[in-house]
Amino acid sequence: MATVNLLEKEQSTDKVKKVFDDISETRGDNKVNNIWKALANDPDLLEATWNRLKKVMAPGALDPVTKELIYITVSIINGCEYCIHSHTAMARKKGMTEEMRSELLAVIAMASQTNALANAYQIEVDADFKK
Amino acid sequence: MATVNLLEKEQSTDKVKKVFDDISETRGDNKVNNIWKALANDPDLLEATWNRLKKVMAPGALDPVTKELIYITVSIINGCEYCIHSHTAMARKKGMTEEMRSELLAVIAMASQTNALANAYQIEVDADFKK
Amino acid sequence: MATVNLLEKEQSTDKVKKVFDDISETRGDNKVNNIWKALANDPDLLEATWNRLKKVMAPGALDPVTKELIYITVSIINGCEYCIHSHTAMARKKGMTEEMRSELLAVIAMASQTNALANAYQIEVDADFKK
Amino acid sequence: MATVNLLEKEQSTDKVKKVFDDISETRGDNKVNNIWKALANDPDLLEATWNRLKKVMAPGALDPVTKELIYITVSIINGCEYCIHSHTAMARKKGMTEEMRSELLAVIAMASQTNALANAYQIEVDADFKK
Amino acid sequence: MATVNLLEKEQSTDKVKKVFDDISETRGDNKVNNIWKALANDPDLLEATWNRLKKVMAPGALDPVTKELIYITVSIINGCEYCIHSHTAMARKKGMTEEMRSELLAVIAMASQTNALANAYQIEVDADFKK
Amino acid sequence: MATVNLLEKEQSTDKVKKVFDDISETRGDNKVNNIWKALANDPDLLEATWNRLKKVMAPGALDPVTKELIYITVSIINGCEYCIHSHTAMARKKGMTEEMRSELLAVIAMASQTNALANAYQIEVDADFKK
Repeated sequence: MATVNLLEKEQSTDKVKKVFDDISETRGDNKVNNIWKALANDPDLLEATWNRLKKVMAPGALDPVTKELIYITVSIINGCEYCIHSHTAMARKKGMTEEMRSELLAVIAMASQTNALANAYQIEVDADFKK
Repeated sequence: MATVNLLEKEQSTDKVKKVFDDISETRGDNKVNNIWKALANDPDLLEATWNRLKKVMAPGALDPVTKELIYITVSIINGCEYCIHSHTAMARKKGMTEEMRSELLAVIAMASQTNALANAYQIEVDADFKK
Repeated sequence: MATVNLLEKEQSTDKVKKVFDDISETRGDNKVNNIWKALANDPDLLEATWNRLKKVMAPGALDPVTKELIYITVSIINGCEYCIHSHTAMARKKGMTEEMRSELLAVIAMASQTNALANAYQIEVDADFKK
Repeated sequence: MATVNLLEKEQSTDKVKKVFDDISETRGDNKVNNIWKALANDPDLLEATWNRLKKVMAPGALDPVTKELIYITVSIINGCEYCIHSHTAMARKKGMTEEMRSELLAVIAMASQTNALANAYQIEVDADFKK
Repeated sequence: MATVNLLEKEQSTDKVKKVFDDISETRGDNKVNNIWKALANDPDLLEATWNRLKKVMAPGALDPVTKELIYITVSIINGCEYCIHSHTAMARKKGMTEEMRSELLAVIAMASQTNALANAYQIEVDADFKK
Repeated sequence: MATVNLLEKEQSTDKVKKVFDDISETRGDNKVNNIWKALANDPDLLEATWNRLKKVMAPGALDPVTKELIYITVSIINGCEYCIHSHTAMARKKGMTEEMRSELLAVIAMASQTNALANAYQIEVDADFKK
């Protein structure tokens, strides 16, 4: 149950169609995920979000799988159900193995724990961490 | 200003000393960070935390830099000042370049934004994301 | 699936009935939302919450729609599914147009992103921001 | 203490200078805030963030003060110290009165409380909230 | 550095003075904490917050120390620096021992970790947990 | 819909079986909750998590019900649906009455509200809170 209607390509403006086509082409998959069908309610936001995402997730100093691991991490800590599912699926498609996933979760669990402890202690940042 | 006293090695029990020595040896650095000096108030928690962290952050299917990137990500989303500083410093020591860091932040910014949008839309998870 | 039973007016104490009647009257709608039926398990908490909410959401220096936009924003960032749905419905009833909603989401997405970046940088607050 | 150096206009590339000039012109203020000086370490991220922010915060279906209220709300719930200060200052400049601010905080406090309660109860979303 | 001025009793309206006096009397301490001096900028919010807090934190089915432990927990997970400090101080005053505090932190660290894992897995809630 | 398969005892390695048996024995209940069946995908993480949890939740300076109250609190603030349900069920089993639960929620609601206000005000921590 969404708070907006999901728009299909056929119902959409030319701007939306162009973005949907670029998504399909970039991903080599005719299916367009629900998040984009929701964003289609606001063609400008759809276009801005997709264009930026396409650029940010492209290979660079970090490889595409690592970028997906970071994306999953943000989504888990923010508790975003949709994003956890979509980026776990995406990461698997891009080559995340189950071993990588296990280690990802172990690091996230570890960090969640020490974050809570550091918050509880309110300790000063060590002087030598300074840039 | 911390909510506990930071304990130095000299003030500590044998269990704490042993952990402090292991930290120094593992990291090749005599300095022990403030978080461990805070945890020294509870030797069991210190020991459990360090032993687990040492194991989790060791090289495996993910390399040590990638693990630090994930650690930083959790810390940024949780807003943990101490952890952001300590793991940014640690990641740089282990080889994170400024290019990697820029891309890390770009992905985190992107994910933060789409997480908020997906939450706002409350869209259904696509059926094909299912395991 | 809730962690408490939802109580109907017929099953409730006089204190609860009085609050339910005031909710119906204030909103011009005989239906009482599930959150109040859950709170009915603790009549004091129900009464305190409703009385405060009624006062806080009344028109003042901010108009009722703006107050709902702020309520939605809190709920999105906290990831509260129920609250996102109920206050999106409420905001629409009070006059939120789809254009307003699109801009609301664009601002939330923007802020989520710069919040993450500012956390990552841990930058000093500019001196001239001081009150 | 930041995790990056803050870059002044004089130290920056042409792309950064152009963004800094646009910020000064748009805001009618020669001072450039620290967040932009931090972002100057990554000229592409600086440019993308500023261009989007400029567009998103421009007057539309929502007026500029309302947009700042929403920005402050996100920042408070995310606990982003820098953003709370900078957008509180910005909102005051754009016309937020102390009465508006008091009501803003009262709504945020109210929503924070009912968000926690709704999470605790895990109640079903009412059927009539559906779009 | 606050976003409002902290108001002293002498600068305040009669409504504020009355609340300040009740705080001092209830706590047996002439000192009024900064949070109340900030809230004094909005006498209605001050009064509503104090009256509710006084009632909620009074002994009941849960003793005052347990209530402070819960308050600290919320504050740690929300990363609220001021609240962590003030309620840690308050809990110590009401009888929280260092052993209790150590166990509190161990539970918080544990829960933070399994919360992250459960979010990552997005597992179904067991049928027998239903009320 | 989970992001991993839930593994039953029969499908599992010896290490997993041993943990499942210990869970059943400790809890006096043959049923193993879904979270453990998810963790069974990574036997090391399962073992580490269970062993630590068993130790942390054992009676000590805090009694088992108080520990569950703290666990629920973390889960509510983090918005972890699974954890809210499982630990509410667990707390009831260990003796949490409805009166205790009502007061728990009242404190959580109160703290959520003052956390947001303290964040909004960005007030200095009172000097006398220092350890």
